[in-house]
Amino acid sequence: MFVRFGLKGKLVLSDRIGDTAEETIAEAVQEANERLFRRGVPREVSSGEVGQITSWRVEGNEIRLELQSGPYTRAHDALFRFRKQLSLAMGRHRLGIRGIAIDEFVLTLGEEVPDTAIPKLPFIGEVRRETGRVQVRLDLSAGELEDRVPDRLLRLIEEKMEAKAYGGKAEHWELLYQSPERPPIYRENPTEEMIARGWIRHGASRGQWIYAPPAVQVFRALEAIVQEEILRPLGFSEMIFPKLVPWEVWMRSGHAKGVYPEIYYISTPKTRDPAYWEDIGDYFKVTGKVWVEEIRKRIEGPIGGMCYAQCPPFWPFVQGETISNDVLPIRIYDRSGTSHRYESGGIHGIERVDEFHRIEVLWIGTVEQTVKVAEELHDRYRHVFEDILELQWRAARVTPWFMAQEGLIGEGCCAGAVGTTDYEALLPYNGTWLEFQNVSVNGDKYPRGFNVKLQSGAECWSGCSGIGYERWAAAFLSQKGFDTSRWPEAVAERVGEFREIFRFV
Amino acid sequence: MFVRFGLKGKLVLSDRIGDTAEETIAEAVQEANERLFRRGVPREVSSGEVGQITSWRVEGNEIRLELQSGPYTRAHDALFRFRKQLSLAMGRHRLGIRGIAIDEFVLTLGEEVPDTAIPKLPFIGEVRRETGRVQVRLDLSAGELEDRVPDRLLRLIEEKMEAKAYGGKAEHWELLYQSPERPPIYRENPTEEMIARGWIRHGASRGQWIYAPPAVQVFRALEAIVQEEILRPLGFSEMIFPKLVPWEVWMRSGHAKGVYPEIYYISTPKTRDPAYWEDIGDYFKVTGKVWVEEIRKRIEGPIGGMCYAQCPPFWPFVQGETISNDVLPIRIYDRSGTSHRYESGGIHGIERVDEFHRIEVLWIGTVEQTVKVAEELHDRYRHVFEDILELQWRAARVTPWFMAQEGLIGEGCCAGAVGTTDYEALLPYNGTWLEFQNVSVNGDKYPRGFNVKLQSGAECWSGCSGIGYERWAAAFLSQKGFDTSRWPEAVAERVGEFREIFRFV
Repeated sequence: MFVRFGLKGKLVLSDRIGDTAEETIAEAVQEANERLFRRGVPREVSSGEVGQITSWRVEGNEIRLELQSGPYTRAHDALFRFRKQLSLAMGRHRLGIRGIAIDEFVLTLGEEVPDTAIPKLPFIGEVRRETGRVQVRLDLSAGELEDRVPDRLLRLIEEKMEAKAYGGKAEHWELLYQSPERPPIYRENPTEEMIARGWIRHGASRGQWIYAPPAVQVFRALEAIVQEEILRPLGFSEMIFPKLVPWEVWMRSGHAKGVYPEIYYISTPKTRDPAYWEDIGDYFKVTGKVWVEEIRKRIEGPIGGMCYAQCPPFWPFVQGETISNDVLPIRIYDRSGTSHRYESGGIHGIERVDEFHRIEVLWIGTVEQTVKVAEELHDRYRHVFEDILELQWRAARVTPWFMAQEGLIGEGCCAGAVGTTDYEALLPYNGTWLEFQNVSVNGDKYPRGFNVKLQSGAECWSGCSGIGYERWAAAFLSQKGFDTSRWPEAVAERVGEFREIFRFV
Repeated sequence: MFVRFGLKGKLVLSDRIGDTAEETIAEAVQEANERLFRRGVPREVSSGEVGQITSWRVEGNEIRLELQSGPYTRAHDALFRFRKQLSLAMGRHRLGIRGIAIDEFVLTLGEEVPDTAIPKLPFIGEVRRETGRVQVRLDLSAGELEDRVPDRLLRLIEEKMEAKAYGGKAEHWELLYQSPERPPIYRENPTEEMIARGWIRHGASRGQWIYAPPAVQVFRALEAIVQEEILRPLGFSEMIFPKLVPWEVWMRSGHAKGVYPEIYYISTPKTRDPAYWEDIGDYFKVTGKVWVEEIRKRIEGPIGGMCYAQCPPFWPFVQGETISNDVLPIRIYDRSGTSHRYESGGIHGIERVDEFHRIEVLWIGTVEQTVKVAEELHDRYRHVFEDILELQWRAARVTPWFMAQEGLIGEGCCAGAVGTTDYEALLPYNGTWLEFQNVSVNGDKYPRGFNVKLQSGAECWSGCSGIGYERWAAAFLSQKGFDTSRWPEAVAERVGEFREIFRFV
């Protein structure tokens, strides 16, 4: 792709620039254009591709500069390299560089870049098309240039063009295993049956159920099977991960790139001084209504959201650490609370909810260890689904959108191992397959994001696997129904007698 | 207290009011003043205390009215009673009442009402003091008058005066039981030891810990004791209560009266259309920062908050229902997720956190049943603290502020039973007592708020008890330390070997 960066700006010096200093500047510019800006650039790259100071002049205590570049030693990089070099040279003239001001910054691309690939952001100004080029004017401070905002912008534009080429959110799906067919012994929608039996009832918020004892008995029986047949044999230890997730975590986990449409946002009171809130309470006491518009003005944030993916808030536990070789692989899990996703509205069963319950399994190790734990989990899951729950199920390898987007596939030696395996169960009542479980090998995504290293210096990888109580129960009840005498014994035994403790008149 | 309501307004009729209709109005006014407004008012109440139409006149299709009252058949009640009566009478003249408009509404109180007892709300206008009176001008629509806003306002003013008389948030505290002294075998701050051992580490958000396996082993051992020694013997069944709490729940539970300074507020995306959020993700990808100000504009709510007290979101399960006699008392508990309180900042141990984990125990029954379950719980708790955890502890009866405020004490036959018992444990490292547990009999507060009845017609009561893992662990570890060979056997056995699975270099 054709790429050019153009910059007009000035270096502000501590005093008026005299004639001898100006001569030094002339030398520095020549030195920079001929050598400094070529450093690290492959020899075969033509000079038009590399940063150059194309014009400069002295005005009082300022040096006015124009820089141009292709993709190598980009105009803004060149400017900061030049500043550093000049700073030394000006020392001789007792002049210091006091600041940088940017007057204009233009990114020029080939005309094949569609408008839809150029993000709409406050610092992106006019977009002009002429003579086979697209010119994007950027309103950026020197600090933002030094922070490499133009480089990330260019990468994002390339990403968007690629995404459009891939046709959006397409996910690659490849069948890995299909269980033997099992004649279903039940053909109804289990959610309707659970409602009719009083096992579940809608909570006050959307996509939220309240579970009565029999439903919890099923959940806990499945949990016991997971603990006894999977987590304990494989040596996983229980931890408790936080459930309120601030931006800091999602910035490192990568969720800050795109989680926004689906999260429940969290804000905090501006103060916990009761006097500050007295009138809000009074408003309710007098009108019987919550004064939402006024509350909006008195809260800060949002500071983040409710737990979405369950593992990111674990990572601060190991953030910045180097893990000893002798404790690898780390094998842990969490079952301490709810996850929340703002799902599309409408009426859904327990398999598609805004508030759900999940055991999150997580492991960390070398590349080989991480891949091996995933394989061990696959084996144990298969055992549970085949021999204990006796499900009709299948496993498929999928490549989630975010991984394709982040270029996390097709890199390095074990790169083929990075990805997700989905487990799907047949729902006899409508003939569809429900994704009720997954295992992901996430490569170095999390260790890199949270700066976690291994003592050996080997690459650090991690994996995770989410076990949703609602989805396991939906899969199981859809196929096995509610007559426990026809259930696999291991489940029936663990559930025991249903505790039907409510009766209404 | 001196109370007067004064109202100026008009009834708008469907057509011009003729002379014969005006005669009918005159009769209706006399009838209302002499009989209609006296209905239900005790005979001994003087006429100055009761609502009266003090003046009226016809203008085109409107009747302009002025009403005055003391606390009986208040001016606005009188207006609506009069409208109903007049509506019938006007039928004869083929006139309908099309609307009510309020021109002025003034609440007059004795001068002993301080300014601080008058809430600051948008519809409360000028407050004027003269000749021993306070006049409060209210800007209310007819709908708000019909919805009894002035009455609730008056009650709130009385409440605020009472609160000031009581000296604010004073809580009554009365020792019920004190365990024998036990020589402490440990005198350090357990939080510091847990940090040093790598059992806990701060999460990314404030007042939030990440718990490593040994800490979770302690929590789960305590949980097992609660289940085996308390919940199972007393016949409690596990449910799952929601953890996102919308206003609708807090409006009924009463928390909407004053929970605001301490909650984590939740807002939802205005849409889950990815295109709507694309630039927010782009902003992060390009700048590395989350675009919080822009996100604020694209979310709705707050719709409520994260779980604060654990039992309110259960209540929609029984809302509007009449419970069969034969299933009483209902005994349930929830341990499915986190609670969140915006606590004061600074560094605290695990006993005072923003995010914590709790078993919430809840029961519903007749007055006698509810009180009896609380007593059974007290007995079992005492057994656990004395015989199993071997704690130095005490129990005290406290009357929480909100109950005093809501007049929930001192009513009815068993009223003495409504209230809270706090359990406190000595922290040897600083000599203070930690409230680590409570049992509350809440009277009819929740059944009334959520409209729950009993088949027998008897009064429905409920109780709840919160068992916090962090606080139980803080109490236990403060007194018993970390050498499991010196622990009570029942705890040491259930904890087993500490799983120290992390080591950093």
